[in-house]
Amino acid sequence: MQRSIATVSLSGTLPEKLEAAAAARFDGVEIFENDLVYYDGSPRAVRQMAADLGLDILLFQPFRDFEGAPRDRLARNLDRAERKFDLMAELGAPAILVCSNVAPDAIGDEAVLVDDLRQLAERAAKRGLKIGYEALAWGRHVRSWHQAWRIVQKVDHPSLGLILDSFHTLSLKDDLTGLDQVPPDRITFVQIADAPIMAMDVLEWSRHYRCFPGQGAFDLASFLAPIVAGGYRGPLSLEIFNDGFRAAPPRPNAADGMRSLLHLEEVTASHLAAAPAATRAGQRASLFQPPPPSRYAGFEFLEFAVDETAGPALAGWFETLGFTHVGQHRSKNVALYRQGAINLVLNSEPDSFAHAYFLLHGPSVCAMALAVDDLQGALDRALLYHCQPYAGGVGPNESVIPAICAPDGSLIYFVEEGAAPSIYETDFVPVEAAGEGGPAHLASIDHVSIGLPDGQFDRWLLFYKTALGFVADDTFVVPDPYGLVRSRALHSIGDAVRIPLNISESRNTVLARSITAYGGAGVQHIACATGDIRAAVATLRQRGLRFLAIPRNYYDDLASKFGLAQEVLDELAALDILYDRDADGGEFLQAYSEAFGGRFVIEIVERHGYRQYGAANAPVRLAAQAASASRSPYSFDELEG
Amino acid sequence: MQRSIATVSLSGTLPEKLEAAAAARFDGVEIFENDLVYYDGSPRAVRQMAADLGLDILLFQPFRDFEGAPRDRLARNLDRAERKFDLMAELGAPAILVCSNVAPDAIGDEAVLVDDLRQLAERAAKRGLKIGYEALAWGRHVRSWHQAWRIVQKVDHPSLGLILDSFHTLSLKDDLTGLDQVPPDRITFVQIADAPIMAMDVLEWSRHYRCFPGQGAFDLASFLAPIVAGGYRGPLSLEIFNDGFRAAPPRPNAADGMRSLLHLEEVTASHLAAAPAATRAGQRASLFQPPPPSRYAGFEFLEFAVDETAGPALAGWFETLGFTHVGQHRSKNVALYRQGAINLVLNSEPDSFAHAYFLLHGPSVCAMALAVDDLQGALDRALLYHCQPYAGGVGPNESVIPAICAPDGSLIYFVEEGAAPSIYETDFVPVEAAGEGGPAHLASIDHVSIGLPDGQFDRWLLFYKTALGFVADDTFVVPDPYGLVRSRALHSIGDAVRIPLNISESRNTVLARSITAYGGAGVQHIACATGDIRAAVATLRQRGLRFLAIPRNYYDDLASKFGLAQEVLDELAALDILYDRDADGGEFLQAYSEAFGGRFVIEIVERHGYRQYGAANAPVRLAAQAASASRSPYSFDELEG
Repeated sequence: MQRSIATVSLSGTLPEKLEAAAAARFDGVEIFENDLVYYDGSPRAVRQMAADLGLDILLFQPFRDFEGAPRDRLARNLDRAERKFDLMAELGAPAILVCSNVAPDAIGDEAVLVDDLRQLAERAAKRGLKIGYEALAWGRHVRSWHQAWRIVQKVDHPSLGLILDSFHTLSLKDDLTGLDQVPPDRITFVQIADAPIMAMDVLEWSRHYRCFPGQGAFDLASFLAPIVAGGYRGPLSLEIFNDGFRAAPPRPNAADGMRSLLHLEEVTASHLAAAPAATRAGQRASLFQPPPPSRYAGFEFLEFAVDETAGPALAGWFETLGFTHVGQHRSKNVALYRQGAINLVLNSEPDSFAHAYFLLHGPSVCAMALAVDDLQGALDRALLYHCQPYAGGVGPNESVIPAICAPDGSLIYFVEEGAAPSIYETDFVPVEAAGEGGPAHLASIDHVSIGLPDGQFDRWLLFYKTALGFVADDTFVVPDPYGLVRSRALHSIGDAVRIPLNISESRNTVLARSITAYGGAGVQHIACATGDIRAAVATLRQRGLRFLAIPRNYYDDLASKFGLAQEVLDELAALDILYDRDADGGEFLQAYSEAFGGRFVIEIVERHGYRQYGAANAPVRLAAQAASASRSPYSFDELEG
Repeated sequence: MQRSIATVSLSGTLPEKLEAAAAARFDGVEIFENDLVYYDGSPRAVRQMAADLGLDILLFQPFRDFEGAPRDRLARNLDRAERKFDLMAELGAPAILVCSNVAPDAIGDEAVLVDDLRQLAERAAKRGLKIGYEALAWGRHVRSWHQAWRIVQKVDHPSLGLILDSFHTLSLKDDLTGLDQVPPDRITFVQIADAPIMAMDVLEWSRHYRCFPGQGAFDLASFLAPIVAGGYRGPLSLEIFNDGFRAAPPRPNAADGMRSLLHLEEVTASHLAAAPAATRAGQRASLFQPPPPSRYAGFEFLEFAVDETAGPALAGWFETLGFTHVGQHRSKNVALYRQGAINLVLNSEPDSFAHAYFLLHGPSVCAMALAVDDLQGALDRALLYHCQPYAGGVGPNESVIPAICAPDGSLIYFVEEGAAPSIYETDFVPVEAAGEGGPAHLASIDHVSIGLPDGQFDRWLLFYKTALGFVADDTFVVPDPYGLVRSRALHSIGDAVRIPLNISESRNTVLARSITAYGGAGVQHIACATGDIRAAVATLRQRGLRFLAIPRNYYDDLASKFGLAQEVLDELAALDILYDRDADGGEFLQAYSEAFGGRFVIEIVERHGYRQYGAANAPVRLAAQAASASRSPYSFDELEG
């Protein structure tokens, strides 16, 4: 199948749009008329430019308010069409999209619509062009694909076909029955868009909120599967009207589009796999089918980019937190710290990826390693989804740890679950524990939160859904004293790896300020699971770890919400531990360290049958973080000496 | 009437919110519970803080899901209420808002609701507190104010009253009949919010899109007038849930809130003025009633802040445009240029307002003067709306020109229409025309466009609606190659002064980039009216003025849109003149200069019964500006020598 994108989906001038589409490996494009009108070059030059980039111009669009216009305007409308045919000839576009008339004075009599479209088809035929007729969800009379298809059948002209658009069909919750019965040669084109479910005017929804497949909530596979089952093998084209996309750089956005289209093909192929065996193999053959998502076993390690100054400071903080220096890399300036099943790696090796990352972002988490049951499958899947692979320098007899780049340029390593010898055994020399304090009840990594700059949520969502096969939870919107923060967690199948993504809708929130300080997206905090949060907090506080101070008013409110015993409340308040309970009685306790060096936060969590992340406590935590940030810094300097 | 604001309407910590409310001269506040919960200080300390700032704490809110809860929860809910009463006692809040139950398991039997609320009222009475009952638009059973009022009447307890909220009532298009029959002593509180009309889920609409009165589309006067007519003189309180407000600095936002509340009072007073004379004077007495909006006669002059370098460059550009240096200020380094009825003032006086403005923004329009029929009324109105007055230094026998500050700190002068002698005669010495070229068919200022940074649209809208009594047109959203631009024009009564406001929704658009370069809001272009745009463009082009190049594809599209004759199209194309026609056949021609010094743009317009601003041409113009900006600069240097 040809993969295509409409120029309206991307920002920039027409050459910028075409270049972005080609770079993302699309086969073709739909030229949106306005992109041509506003471009200072001839249609012939655009044709040449597309050809040079290896892109087919598959469709010219849209031609509006044609069929059923008041009778005195028909002749002028046909003239108008001829002008567009001239333009298409120069452009080399084989087909034009005619969308159903939305004018208040449009005629609804089907015989008139059929007659008008027949005249148009006859004229197109003389020019060797095709007309594709599409039902707009807000058309005056023709709104459903069934209506458009009935009209196309009645016209019965080889130059007139049907255009199907997932948004128009799914936004109306239109009946999909019969989609697989439309002969494939009568389908001129298939346009794909996803969208979040919104109870709003469908025209506004369509014009501003469409998004790439997988970023919204439509069941696109239920739309595409019958079309493919019916034999359609023509172009699949992304036609996305989205305010954010209009403002986003076109190249990464086009790359997202390609990834989303591949994902839709994967999901559609799974959908078709449920069909009778006789037909399904052939149907699916044309679709993208990567290895299925892997089962991840957990976070293997987190790697911190540091230098000679930040390294010892952070190491000191880790030791306060109960981590022990257990290994030193055989050939690199890399130290391994461990507590329970948590491995933290401090990388200050010059000329390394970590060093480059340090130069860009300062002390930061530059990589996370995930343990996976099927290493090759995980890697293959990510690469087929066009992820950038990464391979670092490896010393003799050291492990090769394959990796891919996340959207912010940080790395995700894949490590085989339970491999023997382990990467720690092959690559690290054991260190005699220097043993100050010892462990502090932290057992494993519960989750890692990533803070994203404005407008990048959908990109990351798509990355984790495709490259890693993760599943997204619901979105929470949480008030910060200076704006709103939107949070949505992703988790691997089986839940062992959990990554909440947080994005700020204001430049003033605690999150946005930390992202700015960080110089981009980044790990915002690391949540460590414990079986005894009271003991963990008490131990760490005794060692001088600074916890976020929670207002007493919060505990008074907790009392009226959950009816906790006074002594429990007092104990939680004394330890600054937050509490939540879900509808099924699952309990959650959490405490946050102050941000070390204005960046690194450890959250300590104790779960009792509770699956979420304490969204109810996020506002008080954000308010406490804002207050903490405006007080004395908890800095590298403090722990250095 | 007491003017109040809910703390949820403002960003920041509780002290920041209270300080902003006090600075904006509110009489009182509603304390939103979460603002207290997240604040690290006791309720008693908050009470003291409010008292120190001269603010009454008028309401504590909300208390949720109380009436009609499953019977086994009633006792715990009453306990929960007692806890809140404790808190209110410490806080010094006399009343609490109880909003109608939204829980899926809430009981709808009115007898149960009445009984529950009676128990609550009895408990409140013992503590000397009041309960206000409010119908949420998405309540499980109680949604309209009529229902809530019937229940309050049935309870018939002096400690239980009704809370009215404009959003809940108007969002449901609820029946307002009988609002004037509710005895004023049974109304505990009145909450005010406006909102744009949106076809979306009412809960989402309420939580994210409320705005200050006058910034949305609700007919708030129709809601408030009967309440005032019924005798209510208690607090009017702004309760605005708005994502933008959560992120905006609280002080200017609170000032906007006060201005919007005053405006609502003005509009409500007008509404009441239509009532029978017997009652109306008394009803209106409690409301804010400034002098009515003035009739403006046009732009008197525009003032440019320049220095010794930019001044001559800009003067040279003005001369190219056909302006003549006709006067020099008696005591200041200020030059007057004129063409037709257009007066442009170049101010390079040191130690002046213009100089300060120049230091902040570079060469820019620092003031506009408006001619008005009732100077004192216009000024009084603006000052009563809390505008900042400005008075500059004046030499002997020179005119005092009163002014106010616009939201960006630029000035708006008020000049009496047709005053004799004119300000030009009193303050300027005539200059012998140096006469290069002479006039170029520009007759008057048609409109002045102002570009605004993100998030400031509503503030400016409110400023012009209140301080100047302007009227707002519809909003247009226009695609730029790198994002969307939102445009909404304001005009004086009678249309002589027209000011389109433009705001970018992306940081990459032409507009956003020019605003960044400008260092804030500012005049984006000056549109001059002409009777002969072809002659004007031809003349100016001959003199070397650079016009924005419009792609040929635009004219081909124009042909198919309007069926213009080929020779007309060719002429327009040769002169880079844009064309539009409205539904009534009104015609509009426009041409744009390239941006001089990356900032100053002259638009030339010729109107034939056309009232708008050529929104249909805005995309091609923005694309051409983007292309122009990326080509060779049209700079001060170029014209300096």
